[in-house]
Amino acid sequence: MDLHALKSVAEKIFEDIRVLSWDGVGVTRASYGPGETATAVYLRRFAESHGLVVSTDAAANLLFRQPSLAPDARAVWTGSHLDSVPRGGNFDGLAGIVAGLLCLVAHQQAGTCIPLCVIAFRGEESAWFGKAYMGSAAAFGLLSAHDLQLRHRSGDRTLGDYMAQAGADTLAVTSGRPLIDKALVAAYLELHIEQGPVMVARHLPLAVVSGIRGNVRHNRVRCIGEAGHSGAVPRWLRRDAMFAVADLIMRLDEHWRAMLERGMDLVVTTGIVGTDAAEHSISRIPGTVDFSFEARSRSQDTLEAFHALMQAECDTIGQERGVRFEFDRRLLSAPATMDDHVISVLSQACTQQGVAFDVIASGAGHDAAVLANAGIPSGMVFIRNANGSHNPNEAMDLDDFMPGVAVIAAAAKALA
Amino acid sequence: MDLHALKSVAEKIFEDIRVLSWDGVGVTRASYGPGETATAVYLRRFAESHGLVVSTDAAANLLFRQPSLAPDARAVWTGSHLDSVPRGGNFDGLAGIVAGLLCLVAHQQAGTCIPLCVIAFRGEESAWFGKAYMGSAAAFGLLSAHDLQLRHRSGDRTLGDYMAQAGADTLAVTSGRPLIDKALVAAYLELHIEQGPVMVARHLPLAVVSGIRGNVRHNRVRCIGEAGHSGAVPRWLRRDAMFAVADLIMRLDEHWRAMLERGMDLVVTTGIVGTDAAEHSISRIPGTVDFSFEARSRSQDTLEAFHALMQAECDTIGQERGVRFEFDRRLLSAPATMDDHVISVLSQACTQQGVAFDVIASGAGHDAAVLANAGIPSGMVFIRNANGSHNPNEAMDLDDFMPGVAVIAAAAKALA
Repeated sequence: MDLHALKSVAEKIFEDIRVLSWDGVGVTRASYGPGETATAVYLRRFAESHGLVVSTDAAANLLFRQPSLAPDARAVWTGSHLDSVPRGGNFDGLAGIVAGLLCLVAHQQAGTCIPLCVIAFRGEESAWFGKAYMGSAAAFGLLSAHDLQLRHRSGDRTLGDYMAQAGADTLAVTSGRPLIDKALVAAYLELHIEQGPVMVARHLPLAVVSGIRGNVRHNRVRCIGEAGHSGAVPRWLRRDAMFAVADLIMRLDEHWRAMLERGMDLVVTTGIVGTDAAEHSISRIPGTVDFSFEARSRSQDTLEAFHALMQAECDTIGQERGVRFEFDRRLLSAPATMDDHVISVLSQACTQQGVAFDVIASGAGHDAAVLANAGIPSGMVFIRNANGSHNPNEAMDLDDFMPGVAVIAAAAKALA
Repeated sequence: MDLHALKSVAEKIFEDIRVLSWDGVGVTRASYGPGETATAVYLRRFAESHGLVVSTDAAANLLFRQPSLAPDARAVWTGSHLDSVPRGGNFDGLAGIVAGLLCLVAHQQAGTCIPLCVIAFRGEESAWFGKAYMGSAAAFGLLSAHDLQLRHRSGDRTLGDYMAQAGADTLAVTSGRPLIDKALVAAYLELHIEQGPVMVARHLPLAVVSGIRGNVRHNRVRCIGEAGHSGAVPRWLRRDAMFAVADLIMRLDEHWRAMLERGMDLVVTTGIVGTDAAEHSISRIPGTVDFSFEARSRSQDTLEAFHALMQAECDTIGQERGVRFEFDRRLLSAPATMDDHVISVLSQACTQQGVAFDVIASGAGHDAAVLANAGIPSGMVFIRNANGSHNPNEAMDLDDFMPGVAVIAAAAKALA
């Protein structure tokens, strides 16, 4: 089996899918939307044309295996997600699916069988419905009817509507029962680009992941003050919602700085902030401002502590500035620890590839967190990637990617 | 002449125009847009049906007079503006035009003539094109071809396009020559609702205005940082545009507080703030944030000082947070002082009405500032108004308004 000979195949897949999900600025593969489905259709055809068997689960996730592997055989699973953020990059998610497919294709071409099942999850990105890991959570019976009521970012329809349109059986999804028999999954491996700047800075083509940050979120917090004429209301009578939100962000920034100095792991982001476009103007004191809140940490205690601090600051600012804050439902994705044995097997496989690597933590969330927290021994391989992710400038070198594919193949054999 | 008998006429005009410009939440009379034009058409019909003569200037402002007043007679002018902010209130602007028309109608019905010309300015509100006083500036040759390139808030077309559609002669407007012969204007009087909470708090039905705040503005400042994955970029590597803007707002708030303590007159507003809807998400560090900046003061020195402070803070934040700020064209509306003699005449007229009044400053801007700065002796009468303005809850009592109309009529006679 010569995996490296498949580099040109990998190149063609990435290029074809980049073109079919191109939005003029980056790629857009909306969760349960057209770009994600087009990618699924492309990969299904690719797999079938290379002799693989493709099926879907009730959440419309795709499963790929060699025909020589029985559907009820215990196997190592590998994969990642099909979707992207709006105007995102081509490799985030897709790389892990392509890596698994290349392993299967190599063995199929060699006439051998690898005990590996490849899964292409839908709906990992929170950008579309404000919730991450939708596809993998559904696979493990963790997506509730309440979750299916989440609205699409366009406001038009719910997650349940979009899942049904993509072919999911939403009754089965919300039954609370796993769609996958966990006993059949010996281990879960996920190859993914690094989404931060660490590996480029440290000249590491590959890395093995030790754990994954969890997060606590509110998709929308509304700060409600009082609108008024910008010239006619003196400072002491103002209830300016924008000044209140700016005050909150600066208080969060200061708590964040202090918690880092105390050695805690934390990042804080307000990715969506805005005055009300239906009524804002230069000469109007903003009466309402909506914003998103997200904190990420490898420690759930840190997430809880920071969330409590945020709420306390909202109370204080409410009193000081005459505003109030309304929170939507709190969403928590638990941090996850990768399996020690899987880490060790992946590390050995990296060593065998003869490339520099290290064991590092993942700042970003991944489907592997869901599988690890479901009790499946899980591990991840990161591929070096310049320019971060969730933007069109992701830059993964195929000469870093192909050794990563080999690591997945070797680890799958060792863990089966 | 019994002005008070015209209270029911005033009531009907306000109600009819409220209905025709209702948007479901408040009134919307966009500058040079449909609601403003519909109001102009209504008032023209009203005036003509009451025997008045109506004409327009080259900027599509409306002029009303009794047929017995020669078009080239020197007269006192009174009026205000037709337009409103989006989802605004019914009295802001409209009250001053209705007041003038009631004076003319009362004299027309009595068979007498008052040396008063009523002007209904278009385009006073900056909410639509980011620039205030467009109609009155045009009347005095102060609207440039550059100004006519300003984009409508929807981004679709320019001020010039909208003015032309409303019937203006944009070549004449940008000629630099006044559209009105200043020698014919003996004085300018403007009745307007108070747009702040002072008169309600002080139980003053009427007030005479001493001066009008000017303002310095940027319709759009863009803070440019670097987008990135919210989980994967540590604090020290972030260039978060939203945290940078929040930092700026809090620094401005602190300078504002300090300048008030030093006795300076100032209000500061960031009415429009937002991450980029085309690409923002909960899990993405905002790479750009757009916001508006406005400071208002009765002192031009204070405006200049605050603007310089704002730019210096942008430089500092740029260095500290790895962002940069891009400014659009700076717009300055000069503060204005009302004429001492006009103030005295208006005060005497208020005293004759037997209602409580005081001489106070205007926090909001008004067309009277343009006329005062053009050298026309100008004065304003404020009417008490609950709930502020630029919102649908404006509440002017007609029992406060009618004595205000009588003040305009009496002052016009005294000043003619």
